[in-house]
Amino acid sequence: MSRSLGRISKMLLGVASLPSCGTPVTREPVRRCCVRNMGLPWPFSFQPRDFSLPNSSWGSEMMRLYEHYNSQCEVETEGGERRRGPWRRLPSYNRSLKYATGGVYLSKLIQSKARFFTRNMRAPGAAFEYVIFANKEEQKCVCVFQAGHLLEGQPGFVHGGATATMIDNVTGAHAIYTSGLVMTANLNINYRSPIPLGSTLLIESCLDKKEGRKVFVSCKVTSTDGSKLYTDATALFLSVTVGNLLGA
Amino acid sequence: MSRSLGRISKMLLGVASLPSCGTPVTREPVRRCCVRNMGLPWPFSFQPRDFSLPNSSWGSEMMRLYEHYNSQCEVETEGGERRRGPWRRLPSYNRSLKYATGGVYLSKLIQSKARFFTRNMRAPGAAFEYVIFANKEEQKCVCVFQAGHLLEGQPGFVHGGATATMIDNVTGAHAIYTSGLVMTANLNINYRSPIPLGSTLLIESCLDKKEGRKVFVSCKVTSTDGSKLYTDATALFLSVTVGNLLGA
Repeated sequence: MSRSLGRISKMLLGVASLPSCGTPVTREPVRRCCVRNMGLPWPFSFQPRDFSLPNSSWGSEMMRLYEHYNSQCEVETEGGERRRGPWRRLPSYNRSLKYATGGVYLSKLIQSKARFFTRNMRAPGAAFEYVIFANKEEQKCVCVFQAGHLLEGQPGFVHGGATATMIDNVTGAHAIYTSGLVMTANLNINYRSPIPLGSTLLIESCLDKKEGRKVFVSCKVTSTDGSKLYTDATALFLSVTVGNLLGA
Repeated sequence: MSRSLGRISKMLLGVASLPSCGTPVTREPVRRCCVRNMGLPWPFSFQPRDFSLPNSSWGSEMMRLYEHYNSQCEVETEGGERRRGPWRRLPSYNRSLKYATGGVYLSKLIQSKARFFTRNMRAPGAAFEYVIFANKEEQKCVCVFQAGHLLEGQPGFVHGGATATMIDNVTGAHAIYTSGLVMTANLNINYRSPIPLGSTLLIESCLDKKEGRKVFVSCKVTSTDGSKLYTDATALFLSVTVGNLLGA
């Protein structure tokens, strides 16, 4: 996969390009909602909001887990220099069409208004609040997810579609992180127990195997201490080209 | 299933109670957004907005299909009287907690602000626009779905989670329509082709079988003329009691 293809593929699912492993980084203070300039050429060099950073709606459990994984995104070397650690926080944006033109079926009107499904709400905490961390060596992703009040299905519980959405999101980001551009081919989801609205949850995904264009990822949704399993799932993704995706 | 349980169960998934089969009905003009008083005791007798009725965002294909199925919701007898036809339009609301207290895990704040996931947007046409029709005799449901610009996944296409959400919604409404209160136990979804954002689609569900508490429903998402298959799925639901649901 070329560097540019990798960069585009990560952006398309709201996963921005990351500095290469080993690059010294600057520590970002928690709750500071700035974003890094990603070093992209104009007209891509504006600073979009990174939704994976903390906001005022994040509860204490969400913040605790964010800080736990975020602190492992950089480590201190013996010489006192800070370097990338085993985990990466995956930035997340709400407008993929800002980065890649295409969508041949869309009218100009729809293009300009289009928003990424899980980031389409302005009100913090109302719907999907989440941050995804990836660990390349362990072939794992962890998502800390806070389910807002607009995700209701049965009274007081999260809609099965909202859970499916987060599973597609996390396993999809994982597949893109390891394999470049992909499309979902199958989701098989077992709902073990209804998830109370307002919960903070862990969604953990694991890369099971890669066979040609196929990427197999499994996933489970649990309480933050891992003691209660709410949902488990398997996901299959197919690698695609930018041409496939943009309808070229 | 008792009459009251049936009424509650249909409301919990946004499917209001319907007049019994054979009752003469009044024709509702298309695009008139009134709703019928459902005969509920105070404080339930306000008139919530029925999101399954047409609004200004519905395109011509959406309207054509709505009118096609809606016209079969009542038929004219030889005596000129209008009676229920083979199809039912399932009303759809955005606040299940207005009807049923519960959600033991919820704070009062979240309860008052909670909205049904697929009906949580005020702007018409922005996200999920859909209407579900049920045919009890044929054990089928048909949903006409218009995918708004806030449902984006890959650029220009509908997010896999949004498609999963609609599949859960339609098969779930179908299971509730035939079997009372249910919870989703499994969704197995095959994504055959990406769905262009802004599309109008048909989602057809079929009741496969019932075994004890288990309700098996299959489903496919196609173009409105049925010529292109975008997604197919199977869904398993488990019958539950109101007590299960409300955490009693």
